[in-house]
Amino acid sequence: MCPAAVNDGDRRGYIIPIGGGEDKGPSPSILERFVDIAGGSQADIVVLPTASTLESTGPLYEEIFDGLGAGTVSSISIGTREDCNDPQLAERCEKATGIFITGGNQLRLSTILGGTDVAQTLRRINARGVPIAGTSAGASIMSEHMIAGGDADQGPSEGGAVLAPGLGLTNAGVIDQHFSERYRLGRLLSAIALNPFLLGIGIDEDTGAFIDADGMMDIVGSGTVTIVDGGDLKYSSAHSANRNQGLGMLGLKMDVLHEGCRYDLNMREAFAPPEDS
Amino acid sequence: MCPAAVNDGDRRGYIIPIGGGEDKGPSPSILERFVDIAGGSQADIVVLPTASTLESTGPLYEEIFDGLGAGTVSSISIGTREDCNDPQLAERCEKATGIFITGGNQLRLSTILGGTDVAQTLRRINARGVPIAGTSAGASIMSEHMIAGGDADQGPSEGGAVLAPGLGLTNAGVIDQHFSERYRLGRLLSAIALNPFLLGIGIDEDTGAFIDADGMMDIVGSGTVTIVDGGDLKYSSAHSANRNQGLGMLGLKMDVLHEGCRYDLNMREAFAPPEDS
Repeated sequence: MCPAAVNDGDRRGYIIPIGGGEDKGPSPSILERFVDIAGGSQADIVVLPTASTLESTGPLYEEIFDGLGAGTVSSISIGTREDCNDPQLAERCEKATGIFITGGNQLRLSTILGGTDVAQTLRRINARGVPIAGTSAGASIMSEHMIAGGDADQGPSEGGAVLAPGLGLTNAGVIDQHFSERYRLGRLLSAIALNPFLLGIGIDEDTGAFIDADGMMDIVGSGTVTIVDGGDLKYSSAHSANRNQGLGMLGLKMDVLHEGCRYDLNMREAFAPPEDS
Repeated sequence: MCPAAVNDGDRRGYIIPIGGGEDKGPSPSILERFVDIAGGSQADIVVLPTASTLESTGPLYEEIFDGLGAGTVSSISIGTREDCNDPQLAERCEKATGIFITGGNQLRLSTILGGTDVAQTLRRINARGVPIAGTSAGASIMSEHMIAGGDADQGPSEGGAVLAPGLGLTNAGVIDQHFSERYRLGRLLSAIALNPFLLGIGIDEDTGAFIDADGMMDIVGSGTVTIVDGGDLKYSSAHSANRNQGLGMLGLKMDVLHEGCRYDLNMREAFAPPEDS
């Protein structure tokens, strides 16, 4: 699904996929910047712990965002599709100035949120300016095409990535997380092999990609973001490979971005940190 | 060290790095092709098991090449630098029509062979047409700059690849092996970050790269060869990164080649299998 349309005079809010395992204190650069963008002491942050089955997940982030000086924080408990169509919960999201989607299992997110009032609300408020951050599974769910699973932990392979529809907050690419730590380049390549128009965005742990309304991505955190661009791919064996067979892919472009690097998702161009460019 | 000069009228022999774990029977495509190139029933193959400390390694390959119909096969036992300067052993290599360097530890190869009569003989006979194959450590040793170690099993990092001088049979790139299986993209990127003129050649297990005199590489086997080209790198943080810090690298090109794909190491260009191009 394409991102919701932006009304005249509005500007789309930040989308902030985080690769999981982000620093949580005492001065956590990624979460601090999210709180700041959401309004700081004026922020009204809603935490969505739906991906997680741990009851402690929502309260943990409430405590963190409180500690970082956010004005109001509340975690809302959504565990079923019925919850998602509860008008009070959608209304609570509607008035938020920032949404944070926790980690867990991205298929819980897509199967529970998909197509509900809450999902539509998230898409709509982002289009009118509200930033939405998500870590781990919460990062994966953001894109139009979501990596739901796949076992290509070595090279790219036929069937090495399983796609599902995501929230569609961006259609600039497909997002993977815990990227270097879980050796997911093969899985990301397997995903873009399916249709090279997809830009592969692999985000390490403790690393956030702050994507603004113009599609400019700014990297924050201790790891790197790996961008794989198959737009100029001149050959792929994806259409003729057998199940689990390794894929040939000729003509990939790759950028590895650390903190301070930026990437223009629309132009597909990487930029060095200002002091080095 | 640059490859030895080719005399007028001669043509350099194949260099055949193999990623380790190659199929050993009953119809092993990589080893069969090596025997064929070395002369088949007329071949006189010398196995160099120096990288290995197992006594069984040399005899194992003797048996395999015998079984594949090679005319003559002998494993020569070289365990010290003194052995390497034994005129009889250098002479045995001199009359070979094919050399096979087994796996083990590439630092054993560089420290025992480096600068000896045997090493010079290998360089000279390759320049006059004798094919030299090497698997695992035997693949790493072939290039001018050899990856001796390094622990970048995630993303590229400062210090993530340790280089040592290799045999210098080719200076087209730096070779890594067991590539996908041991998650060595980070290590290969760390190596090319040191000087982007290096082309990174990552070879999977049971995969051979047959490189001819013109620098054309032909892929054989069940895995893939990943080529990372930093020639157009527009930014790298390698000069300013702290020890073990993740590196930013912008502007990499990457090709993943399966059997039948080819790569021109001089032109840095990949080609699809003939039926698909």
